[in-house]
Amino acid sequence: MTTIQLIEQIQKKKSFLCIGLDVDLNKIPQHLLKEEDPIFEFNKAIIDATHHLCVAYKPNTAFYEACGIKGWQALKKTISYLNKHYPEIFTIADAKRGDIGNTSTMYAKAFFEDLGFDSVTVAPYMGKDSVEPFLAFKNKHTILLALTSNQGAFDFQTKEVNGKEMYKQVLETSKTWANSKNLMYVVGATKAKYLLDIRKIIPESFLLVPGVGAQGGNLQDVCKYGMTKDIGLLINSSRGIIYASNQEDFANAAALKALELQEQMAKEL
Amino acid sequence: MTTIQLIEQIQKKKSFLCIGLDVDLNKIPQHLLKEEDPIFEFNKAIIDATHHLCVAYKPNTAFYEACGIKGWQALKKTISYLNKHYPEIFTIADAKRGDIGNTSTMYAKAFFEDLGFDSVTVAPYMGKDSVEPFLAFKNKHTILLALTSNQGAFDFQTKEVNGKEMYKQVLETSKTWANSKNLMYVVGATKAKYLLDIRKIIPESFLLVPGVGAQGGNLQDVCKYGMTKDIGLLINSSRGIIYASNQEDFANAAALKALELQEQMAKEL
Repeated sequence: MTTIQLIEQIQKKKSFLCIGLDVDLNKIPQHLLKEEDPIFEFNKAIIDATHHLCVAYKPNTAFYEACGIKGWQALKKTISYLNKHYPEIFTIADAKRGDIGNTSTMYAKAFFEDLGFDSVTVAPYMGKDSVEPFLAFKNKHTILLALTSNQGAFDFQTKEVNGKEMYKQVLETSKTWANSKNLMYVVGATKAKYLLDIRKIIPESFLLVPGVGAQGGNLQDVCKYGMTKDIGLLINSSRGIIYASNQEDFANAAALKALELQEQMAKEL
Repeated sequence: MTTIQLIEQIQKKKSFLCIGLDVDLNKIPQHLLKEEDPIFEFNKAIIDATHHLCVAYKPNTAFYEACGIKGWQALKKTISYLNKHYPEIFTIADAKRGDIGNTSTMYAKAFFEDLGFDSVTVAPYMGKDSVEPFLAFKNKHTILLALTSNQGAFDFQTKEVNGKEMYKQVLETSKTWANSKNLMYVVGATKAKYLLDIRKIIPESFLLVPGVGAQGGNLQDVCKYGMTKDIGLLINSSRGIIYASNQEDFANAAALKALELQEQMAKEL
């Protein structure tokens, strides 16, 4: 999917919501555990109930890998279902990968080709030759960790490097990489005030913003400091939406929570 | 496996060799492609031919994920085979994971519990709460990226942070984390001269050292600057060993290459 197509979807749906599919077998409704593939059945129900309210879904690969081969199968079924039934949806593999060049190419193939995601999250620690292999894929997007939503972001990301915080160094350096137009960035909603500085470095890039909801981030602040003329934001909520209820009505409950956020977003547009 | 058991194996085998199982279907002998699971058959043959010459195997997850569900199945079969037939071998999932706390716990479960690896490589960018969930597992080891073997290591890892290079900041900070005794570190063989400084910060920790062989690192230099009284080194070679031949004799050819390295290591002990 191209960035222009993503922007069109945002304008059409009046939503820049991304729903995180972090599926934990201990948290989903018990009645689903009788199904052959409880994870996929949960995702399918959530997607069918919420696809008109969001523009993106973001399965976090950790939750699937923790279930072994069955988890990887559920991930594959989920992305295939999305690509078949809702091709207008932007898909994000939240995988936080990154390795030396030939290995990053393998990760890119896994997520862009074998699974068929539109984008993947990537960690910057190993530098240029660990990220460029992802950037080489046409109409695919690499979402680089810049300033994450967790407390540990203050351990290294905000430390000064040559008089400039590490996350700013990451943003600036990444702009020099081949095919950097295929970059988006992760910036946590819990650090909304930093967006003002971030927009000076990357005025137009799309940001994937986790941390609204369970982690305490604020939608209005993110929009105030981070929105561009083409929106430039994908705001993610995972637990706050998908675990709104653990009863039979879980998909409707999720849709109501997604609707709340979509309505707030419509006001910001 | 405990660190003491690993040291015992090193002394017994006179080897601190780790063999990287980065299996690429385009590089393995063509006759294996007729097998139901070519990746596993390749690994099994390599392992059976080399297990007496090395103390660790390190599958890189990227190569398995690039093959989709079949790849993940081959990874599972490989680690199960190792744990069943060669329980004395130290196993490393080279996965370079790391995410917010609850998600890192899921990755730890995937690699330590579902698959049953002794250790996993983890990226430090997201800080303390992204790494501590891995460290919480008893007799499991978390191998933190410090100074990697690739050119991109100079983009951020060697940049000065408050007057000290980032990788040193990572080493020092990581020592303050809960269960830091379960940490090992990745330091590339291509940067052997840095080991002198690194040993000042972590005098005893085990280092996983990639980059000998195809990437150009030198075994003698790594030993000169990085070895401790308990060895403290696992030196990895992947392509240089497993792709020594792509003919029917591939396993023997790999064993010969592994023997070369083991003999060099025996001299250093």
